[in-house]
Amino acid sequence: MLRASKALGSFISTPRKANILRTMATFSVPQTQKAIVFNELNGPLEYKDIPVPKPKPDEILINVLYSGVCHSDLHVWKGDWPVVPKLPLVGGHEGAGIVVAKGDQVTNFEIGDYAGIKGLYSSCMSCEYCENSYEPNCLDAVLTGCQHDGSFQQYATANAVQAAKIPKETNLAEVAPILCAGITVYKALKTAELKAGEWVAISGAGGGLGSVAVQYAKAMGYRVLGIDAGHKEALVRELGAEAFVDFETTPDLVEEIITKTKGGPHGVINVSVSDRAISQSTQFVRPTGKVVLVGLPPAAVCKSDVLSHVVKSMQIRGSYVGNRADSREAIEFYTRGLVKSPIKIVGLSELPSVFKLMEENKILGRYVVDTSR
Amino acid sequence: MLRASKALGSFISTPRKANILRTMATFSVPQTQKAIVFNELNGPLEYKDIPVPKPKPDEILINVLYSGVCHSDLHVWKGDWPVVPKLPLVGGHEGAGIVVAKGDQVTNFEIGDYAGIKGLYSSCMSCEYCENSYEPNCLDAVLTGCQHDGSFQQYATANAVQAAKIPKETNLAEVAPILCAGITVYKALKTAELKAGEWVAISGAGGGLGSVAVQYAKAMGYRVLGIDAGHKEALVRELGAEAFVDFETTPDLVEEIITKTKGGPHGVINVSVSDRAISQSTQFVRPTGKVVLVGLPPAAVCKSDVLSHVVKSMQIRGSYVGNRADSREAIEFYTRGLVKSPIKIVGLSELPSVFKLMEENKILGRYVVDTSR
Amino acid sequence: MLRASKALGSFISTPRKANILRTMATFSVPQTQKAIVFNELNGPLEYKDIPVPKPKPDEILINVLYSGVCHSDLHVWKGDWPVVPKLPLVGGHEGAGIVVAKGDQVTNFEIGDYAGIKGLYSSCMSCEYCENSYEPNCLDAVLTGCQHDGSFQQYATANAVQAAKIPKETNLAEVAPILCAGITVYKALKTAELKAGEWVAISGAGGGLGSVAVQYAKAMGYRVLGIDAGHKEALVRELGAEAFVDFETTPDLVEEIITKTKGGPHGVINVSVSDRAISQSTQFVRPTGKVVLVGLPPAAVCKSDVLSHVVKSMQIRGSYVGNRADSREAIEFYTRGLVKSPIKIVGLSELPSVFKLMEENKILGRYVVDTSR
Amino acid sequence: MLRASKALGSFISTPRKANILRTMATFSVPQTQKAIVFNELNGPLEYKDIPVPKPKPDEILINVLYSGVCHSDLHVWKGDWPVVPKLPLVGGHEGAGIVVAKGDQVTNFEIGDYAGIKGLYSSCMSCEYCENSYEPNCLDAVLTGCQHDGSFQQYATANAVQAAKIPKETNLAEVAPILCAGITVYKALKTAELKAGEWVAISGAGGGLGSVAVQYAKAMGYRVLGIDAGHKEALVRELGAEAFVDFETTPDLVEEIITKTKGGPHGVINVSVSDRAISQSTQFVRPTGKVVLVGLPPAAVCKSDVLSHVVKSMQIRGSYVGNRADSREAIEFYTRGLVKSPIKIVGLSELPSVFKLMEENKILGRYVVDTSR
Repeated sequence: MLRASKALGSFISTPRKANILRTMATFSVPQTQKAIVFNELNGPLEYKDIPVPKPKPDEILINVLYSGVCHSDLHVWKGDWPVVPKLPLVGGHEGAGIVVAKGDQVTNFEIGDYAGIKGLYSSCMSCEYCENSYEPNCLDAVLTGCQHDGSFQQYATANAVQAAKIPKETNLAEVAPILCAGITVYKALKTAELKAGEWVAISGAGGGLGSVAVQYAKAMGYRVLGIDAGHKEALVRELGAEAFVDFETTPDLVEEIITKTKGGPHGVINVSVSDRAISQSTQFVRPTGKVVLVGLPPAAVCKSDVLSHVVKSMQIRGSYVGNRADSREAIEFYTRGLVKSPIKIVGLSELPSVFKLMEENKILGRYVVDTSR
Repeated sequence: MLRASKALGSFISTPRKANILRTMATFSVPQTQKAIVFNELNGPLEYKDIPVPKPKPDEILINVLYSGVCHSDLHVWKGDWPVVPKLPLVGGHEGAGIVVAKGDQVTNFEIGDYAGIKGLYSSCMSCEYCENSYEPNCLDAVLTGCQHDGSFQQYATANAVQAAKIPKETNLAEVAPILCAGITVYKALKTAELKAGEWVAISGAGGGLGSVAVQYAKAMGYRVLGIDAGHKEALVRELGAEAFVDFETTPDLVEEIITKTKGGPHGVINVSVSDRAISQSTQFVRPTGKVVLVGLPPAAVCKSDVLSHVVKSMQIRGSYVGNRADSREAIEFYTRGLVKSPIKIVGLSELPSVFKLMEENKILGRYVVDTSR
Repeated sequence: MLRASKALGSFISTPRKANILRTMATFSVPQTQKAIVFNELNGPLEYKDIPVPKPKPDEILINVLYSGVCHSDLHVWKGDWPVVPKLPLVGGHEGAGIVVAKGDQVTNFEIGDYAGIKGLYSSCMSCEYCENSYEPNCLDAVLTGCQHDGSFQQYATANAVQAAKIPKETNLAEVAPILCAGITVYKALKTAELKAGEWVAISGAGGGLGSVAVQYAKAMGYRVLGIDAGHKEALVRELGAEAFVDFETTPDLVEEIITKTKGGPHGVINVSVSDRAISQSTQFVRPTGKVVLVGLPPAAVCKSDVLSHVVKSMQIRGSYVGNRADSREAIEFYTRGLVKSPIKIVGLSELPSVFKLMEENKILGRYVVDTSR
Repeated sequence: MLRASKALGSFISTPRKANILRTMATFSVPQTQKAIVFNELNGPLEYKDIPVPKPKPDEILINVLYSGVCHSDLHVWKGDWPVVPKLPLVGGHEGAGIVVAKGDQVTNFEIGDYAGIKGLYSSCMSCEYCENSYEPNCLDAVLTGCQHDGSFQQYATANAVQAAKIPKETNLAEVAPILCAGITVYKALKTAELKAGEWVAISGAGGGLGSVAVQYAKAMGYRVLGIDAGHKEALVRELGAEAFVDFETTPDLVEEIITKTKGGPHGVINVSVSDRAISQSTQFVRPTGKVVLVGLPPAAVCKSDVLSHVVKSMQIRGSYVGNRADSREAIEFYTRGLVKSPIKIVGLSELPSVFKLMEENKILGRYVVDTSR
């Protein structure tokens, strides 16, 4: 079993022993369950009993054991995104658990299989985006934990085509954040379309998304330069970065990055969402290189100088969440042991205090809620 | 021989009859020649006699019969670009003529061949950009009509590897603007990486670059939506646009373009260089689509909303001038008769008044100077 | 309405007038219908009454007005393919008609819509091939007219996700062959990954698939060289070929093709399925070029000389039937008027005699059966 | 300094100490030197004194310290390739040494730099292949050690544009085989266009090319399945293979490989050149996967079943030697320590006996000749 790195501090993975046993048992699905629900945007987050949903013909019902907590969950609850959520809502879109029931038409999951809940609940499967494997871009896409009840409950329904397959023996607590954070940064790295041996800069390399991005980048054969505050250098290097730049103390960040990568990184993954960081990345990226935007800050603007954009022949590419193939691949990198997911586990009932820490920007790494408490 | 379209108004192609005859004769290269020279940025443009240059071992000497006049020539003379030109300078980088002498090592041109002068004089051929056919992005690239004397003279030297091959029988006056304008928009269209049958929007479709872009786009199998002032609609449609939007009178440009292309164009070529047009193009481009920047406005800024950049998974790509392959291909589309180049021919001595018209934004289509007068 | 070219001889498109009227009416679905059925491989093809099938929750029921007849239908009936068909079987996989009923879960079709039946009935939608839009390569793919009853009947069921959308006003008789022949050659051309302006050779350019391929290739911006018997040259050129080589009389076919394309075509579409033609195509294809195999001959072998395969850095690519996106795009080229589909219409009851002509290799162009007689 | 793996047996890297010292000294170039020369195909290989060549204006003169010995050198000497070599000839095309003189026009090398001699001496730089970075496919390509005297001498000339740059501090003996074997397999892996995390099978994984291919594949993020005789399993696994199949004892090779890679490898690198191995690789490659041919066996034929080629939508791609970018990248993987090059060093004068071992198929790993003895 994977061990989180010592450098990851207090984030220790301690999955419930019950996992394996549970999958052996027959699954008796209760009538009610615990969930975190809110009735209005920015309103109270109630931990209470609600009915267990019934799967539709094309859905599976997942006993969610663990769910990651993502900044997007906070945005949805606060209502500062353009997407209008259903109300009342059960949020959460990084759930890992066990299939306990399924609809008539589901052929790709069996009862007892491990399954994951992702940000994309479903898409139409017949528009030009779905046809070309861009289902997250489907105009009829339905988002989990926003337009469909999510993983902050013990039993959640998931569209069988979009639900993630998780191999048996996988640590369900650790894999939870892979289902959004992991897939998202992996997709961003694919969007950069780099070759093995090329340099990729990751801004915010020591943060929740960044620390996962560094590991994927290394596993994909890239040379990684991490950008973050100096006290995170040891962590970022341990995760696989070959070079590091301290954005707080480096006099000329752009020049320093160009020097360390002998001409600028071929790709930049902007998990940091400040306008300034994005703008700088267009300055230090290598000619013909690719700047990838991946975070979803509600009001940020991406600016570049047209003349240099043209003369450098650079590209600024938006990368949204991954499709089914990206998801399968991202999970496989994790199960092969190439990416570790440092987490801190708390009870589902404690979710409101996790949201509070997030709002105060006091969070480090990824929180995962245990739905059993 | 190609005929410019009637819709192109007063732009009529009248090449000198002498072309063919000249190529039969032995080439006696004179000691001096006529040229337009300036000694300081924004200083007097003198039409005078200067020595004919001698080709180096890897150069050819071209008897330039015609040269296009490009906005970049104006920028170089005025000095409002970051690149510092040599002084005194003979500008011009769209020259078409006949090879009259060549250096010892030149094997790819013969005396009497037609040849073209392009924006890129030479590159190092051994850096990573040159190795990967991105020679315009070479850090040691030398620009014609800026760092090396250009085509506003009767005899100009050109690096044999970069000089363009032009088939015999080609109309040298009409092909001149293809050597910069043609190659540039063709490269921009390639940079958009569209499939045949997809929509491309061209902003400024009725202008000098735009009218050439429309024709290339159609020849490449794309469906073209032109954007320009209403009085240019007939021209733009005649050149091949299937749809047209008048940016002056359309109430909601973004909505209109999305409607006409059933979801937004898959690609946008921004030959228009206004910040506003660029910003709008990021709004109407189709999800997963590509916005291409191609003009070189000295102070423009490209802005996009990060959230929508990500959710739409769109890309903003800079496209600089073409490489050797782009150049050959762009010329071939012209010689196959798929692209017409509407021009107005004046004498080289009249160049200062052409620059004046350009500064006053009174120019329509492409001016070509005849070096014989 | 499109008119088949005069050069296409007796193939004239004469669709039933009833089409439009029918779509206005309420659709009353009968209990029984006419169909061509066989009970054993190579056994009698019976024209008889059978029950009208009921659509499953994810299916639509199509009133098939016309169906193309493809060589694959013959192969399935004769049983000389490795795939084992269901028995008894209604063959056919190029059906065009009107949606008259649909299952509960179908959201992408309305009653009265035009719809098309393709070779691929359904795929699992959750394996790695389906995830990446390679659904024809799905290991659980179900083939229409082979493993699921096809279009040689008046009412056929189709999986709603895979069924093709056909715009109203489309000529349903002419579009029928596009649903297999059109999609297949369009996919083959996409598989060649050529750029506009590059040469593509089409062997068997005057045949059923070839004549459609020539038109798609031209619409995609390629330069077409057709290869066929000399008496087909006029037809092939009229359809868009710029060059033609007569394989019966040309002394050195390989040399001639290389000469005419100045170095060999960048791509070759082998709709001809003879071993010899395939082998030759590996000899005349341009270095770095792509040979595409697209036919499904039961026992053919593709051979290439390893040394020349390597030194030329060529590729031999297999292209199977198109996916949903390829299908939509191929139909769009047809409805835009860029591809004509020359057909000969006979009654469904005459299908056995069409199969006979096919076996005797006496068929020219595409036969389409009218299911009303 | 890199250490060859223990599993590599007697192949130990022991470069001359003199390397570093030599580069400090002034370079006095002698008039004559030692070389291995032959005057007729398959004739005597003479170790004798010949004049030191003078570099042309675009050439560098390299003091070759070490040269790898490749099967191609044997083919050239025996004359069993279609390319006709110059005579008399100094063979060899994997030379590593120090620049001791250079022509007037050379700007990318300085005296004292380390430089490498590759298979491609020069190309025209202005044909469509050179323009698109396919210079090995140039019709005027000149091959080192075949059409231009190669690295089996102490002082060799190299075209400055094609010569490889080797960083100072590099072990010149070990890097020699990288200049052909390394570049070639790296190029083959790039030609397979795989994604990180995908499976690549390498046939002949324990041989000279194969053992290098395994290491590159792993460094590029691929999952490697090695195919070879069972006694090489330990070596192949140590070099980075995750799975291994013994081609001598496995009852059903195709089935076994498909099982171990859960569906077949996404790519296959055929460094083994037997017709049978190539044919099998078309059977076990994953649907939509790519089979790469890379060896240059004089009479081998690549065969595939057309029906399965099409239904699997697989591709067979030829990969020739690398271009300048491939070469730089392949060398960088080596200098970063990701690829080890197990070699056995003998004196240049012993070359005839190395050829003999090769002919008898008794060679393991790579021989490198020391030109000083």
